Amino acid sequence: MRRLSFLMPGCETVENSNPARRHFLSIMDLSVDALEGLIDRTLALARGAPVKPLVGSVANLFFEPSTRTRVSFELAAQALGARVVNIELASSSATKGESLTDTCATLAAMGVGTLVVRHPDSGAVATLAADLQGSAQLVNAGDGHGEHPSQALLDAATLQATGLDWPNATLAIIGDLRHSRVARSGLQCFHALGIGCVRLAGPELMLPDWEVGSRVERVHSIEAAVNEADAIMMLRVQHERIDKTIWPEPRTYARDWCLREEHLARAHPDCRVLHPGPINRGMEIESRVADGRQSLILEQVRMGVHARTAIFEWLKDEQQS
Amino acid sequence: MRRLSFLMPGCETVENSNPARRHFLSIMDLSVDALEGLIDRTLALARGAPVKPLVGSVANLFFEPSTRTRVSFELAAQALGARVVNIELASSSATKGESLTDTCATLAAMGVGTLVVRHPDSGAVATLAADLQGSAQLVNAGDGHGEHPSQALLDAATLQATGLDWPNATLAIIGDLRHSRVARSGLQCFHALGIGCVRLAGPELMLPDWEVGSRVERVHSIEAAVNEADAIMMLRVQHERIDKTIWPEPRTYARDWCLREEHLARAHPDCRVLHPGPINRGMEIESRVADGRQSLILEQVRMGVHARTAIFEWLKDEQQS
Amino acid sequence: MRRLSFLMPGCETVENSNPARRHFLSIMDLSVDALEGLIDRTLALARGAPVKPLVGSVANLFFEPSTRTRVSFELAAQALGARVVNIELASSSATKGESLTDTCATLAAMGVGTLVVRHPDSGAVATLAADLQGSAQLVNAGDGHGEHPSQALLDAATLQATGLDWPNATLAIIGDLRHSRVARSGLQCFHALGIGCVRLAGPELMLPDWEVGSRVERVHSIEAAVNEADAIMMLRVQHERIDKTIWPEPRTYARDWCLREEHLARAHPDCRVLHPGPINRGMEIESRVADGRQSLILEQVRMGVHARTAIFEWLKDEQQS
Repeated sequence: MRRLSFLMPGCETVENSNPARRHFLSIMDLSVDALEGLIDRTLALARGAPVKPLVGSVANLFFEPSTRTRVSFELAAQALGARVVNIELASSSATKGESLTDTCATLAAMGVGTLVVRHPDSGAVATLAADLQGSAQLVNAGDGHGEHPSQALLDAATLQATGLDWPNATLAIIGDLRHSRVARSGLQCFHALGIGCVRLAGPELMLPDWEVGSRVERVHSIEAAVNEADAIMMLRVQHERIDKTIWPEPRTYARDWCLREEHLARAHPDCRVLHPGPINRGMEIESRVADGRQSLILEQVRMGVHARTAIFEWLKDEQQS
Repeated sequence: MRRLSFLMPGCETVENSNPARRHFLSIMDLSVDALEGLIDRTLALARGAPVKPLVGSVANLFFEPSTRTRVSFELAAQALGARVVNIELASSSATKGESLTDTCATLAAMGVGTLVVRHPDSGAVATLAADLQGSAQLVNAGDGHGEHPSQALLDAATLQATGLDWPNATLAIIGDLRHSRVARSGLQCFHALGIGCVRLAGPELMLPDWEVGSRVERVHSIEAAVNEADAIMMLRVQHERIDKTIWPEPRTYARDWCLREEHLARAHPDCRVLHPGPINRGMEIESRVADGRQSLILEQVRMGVHARTAIFEWLKDEQQS
Repeated sequence: MRRLSFLMPGCETVENSNPARRHFLSIMDLSVDALEGLIDRTLALARGAPVKPLVGSVANLFFEPSTRTRVSFELAAQALGARVVNIELASSSATKGESLTDTCATLAAMGVGTLVVRHPDSGAVATLAADLQGSAQLVNAGDGHGEHPSQALLDAATLQATGLDWPNATLAIIGDLRHSRVARSGLQCFHALGIGCVRLAGPELMLPDWEVGSRVERVHSIEAAVNEADAIMMLRVQHERIDKTIWPEPRTYARDWCLREEHLARAHPDCRVLHPGPINRGMEIESRVADGRQSLILEQVRMGVHARTAIFEWLKDEQQS
């Protein structure tokens, strides 16, 4: 209790710290029930269920530029009737001035109840949640090579909308697995949902150096990965975040790891194709596939707004839990 | 029909493609009736007519910075009750990542129904409209040296508000006509409204290399252009978009092509003065004229918000047309 | 009267110039009654009083980046139901294009009734208010080394919320007083409220070269400044705005002028600690103090939103005054 004892009545509300508050930081924090509840709610919203209005303010605090994710969260918050402030900071200028924690404590003191944070450092958002001690609710919108749980939720909801039978499904995830927060959070999510088999494939130096869990096969070619697959998730080549010295030549990468129609012929006839976007056409996915009958790329984008709406509703529901 | 056949009911709405959807891309796409309807509606809004609320989201997608135009569209959309997201992208980073079409298809998939796009490439917005196949409605907020139809609408509405008698009016357009989307769209618009005479004047290498239509005179001095004119439209000198090698010295330009009070003395006593802004005082227009009795510059700005409101209403009205 | 005589009825409203309009430019413009009224209203809002809705648009026009102040004004305007547009301009690009006055006259013509302006030049906002002749209401959100009146209001309200007895209070202001708009506006404000004694301390070349008023002591060490003080206001070290040649080494500065717990032991046991933020931990304030029992730093942030809400309400009340 650090408040001065003589603060006037009604002015003592800054320190609403409650370390038990609900955050959306990682798929690993969610029970299977909670995860399935979020997916069900996402799908209900996609079918037109009315939203539960959210009174209050949401800040989108992005230390990495991401038009796509920022706008998705912004539209979700607006749909709920929340007020939104957007803050884009270069992480350099952030370190120059004040710490991430101080920036967020400041926003919380201004009455911003929910902070959607993207940060280039793995683990930054979880650390932040611990530091803030419940003065605001946090959403991890992607942290370095760490996690991207809202992407995992939207991917799972998109797959479920197609009727994917999780226990009997084979999913291939292809690309730079090692540095992909999309792959890591996705794998956690699909495991929780009881997926039958996941195949991981990518260049040797891009295979995961992190724990992948059970029911996972590492295969050594795109052909082996997609064979009879029910779904294929291609990862984005992120030139801007990669150590150039260990990354193959773009031409070599595209030759070996670009998803093409010939690959789809090896997969299940109704195999779904996912990509978190933005896509590099001709690099990790051919246009014919990205724009083809089996592509769920725009469906993922659409589901993303509903998934983020469901996340905001779920955060607000903490009292009931 | 590229949807997977097993998408759940209610989840099949991304592909609401309808190539016949209404866009606001060019004055040339509008019938005279439609154009006059838009002007009338703009003037009605300027007189205080209530707006027709617009449910949904509008994105301002600017690949060139323009505070003025972006804010004008933003205020218009807000006045209609729409939700607005602002996206400013350097065209370089856009090309690095994904194509303009993919960016816009993504926004459409997120449920953004109207995209207001400014782009440095001539024709980019029309190409985009074709590529998107109706998944969103597009407003051309200025494309390279191409068109700027909302500026033409607001200019026409401003002139009409002053009681300009189109068939008997003489209008001078002065400056860098060759590279001016304001001049090109304006000329299309004023022709459609049956203007009596347009005089074009500017440095030799800045005269139009595009089709100017009938009832147009090219004259070789500002004095000849403004003589007995009912309205004068000065164009902005855009140093940032000009090939420096063919552009006259600023001092020479100002000497020959800056609108001064002495010029107004040659024009009709109630001659209107327009400028799309932002103005370079002392370069293409003298402060005494810009701030003088005959200047409509701020009136244009004010009319701009109403013109853009009318455009949003008109896009929404497509069902009735 | 510069309007063209033939403008249609209802289109003559741009020139609503009224040089007597109310602005919020400086604490010095306020009567003591007005200032006390603003503080009382700020405290009432902090205790949960309902706001008086504000119809219309507010523009945040920032020529210096400031997430904290911009978001505080944005949240205040949103709380009132106003529409907000954010405009961040580098002052370089502003000078390239049009003048500050032209930019603001343009926004006023678009119907933006209130302009919140931050500018790197001292006096810029007051000059602007004179130039605009009442076409919009202005809020000075910080001008160079000039003034920062909304900060002074929130600081005074925060101190008053703790029951500070102004006539018997001793306040220390410590740091770069010479270049601090926070110190200057604060001093004006605390004088108006009848503060008993203010002690100013900082490096020799950082002492004020501006008028400090009566009941002010200059002291030469942090120890002398905080002795028996009822409140201590630390100023931010602003490396980015300081002439490097006259500024002490950071290590020297921190040794001599960083507020530490040992200093608090010399002050009144319930001495309040303020800092306008963002804080440089270990430079002008130690973390133990910034996060300690006597720190009002987050309380200031919280009060800031209410102070800015009170300012917007007060601007709107001009008709009643």
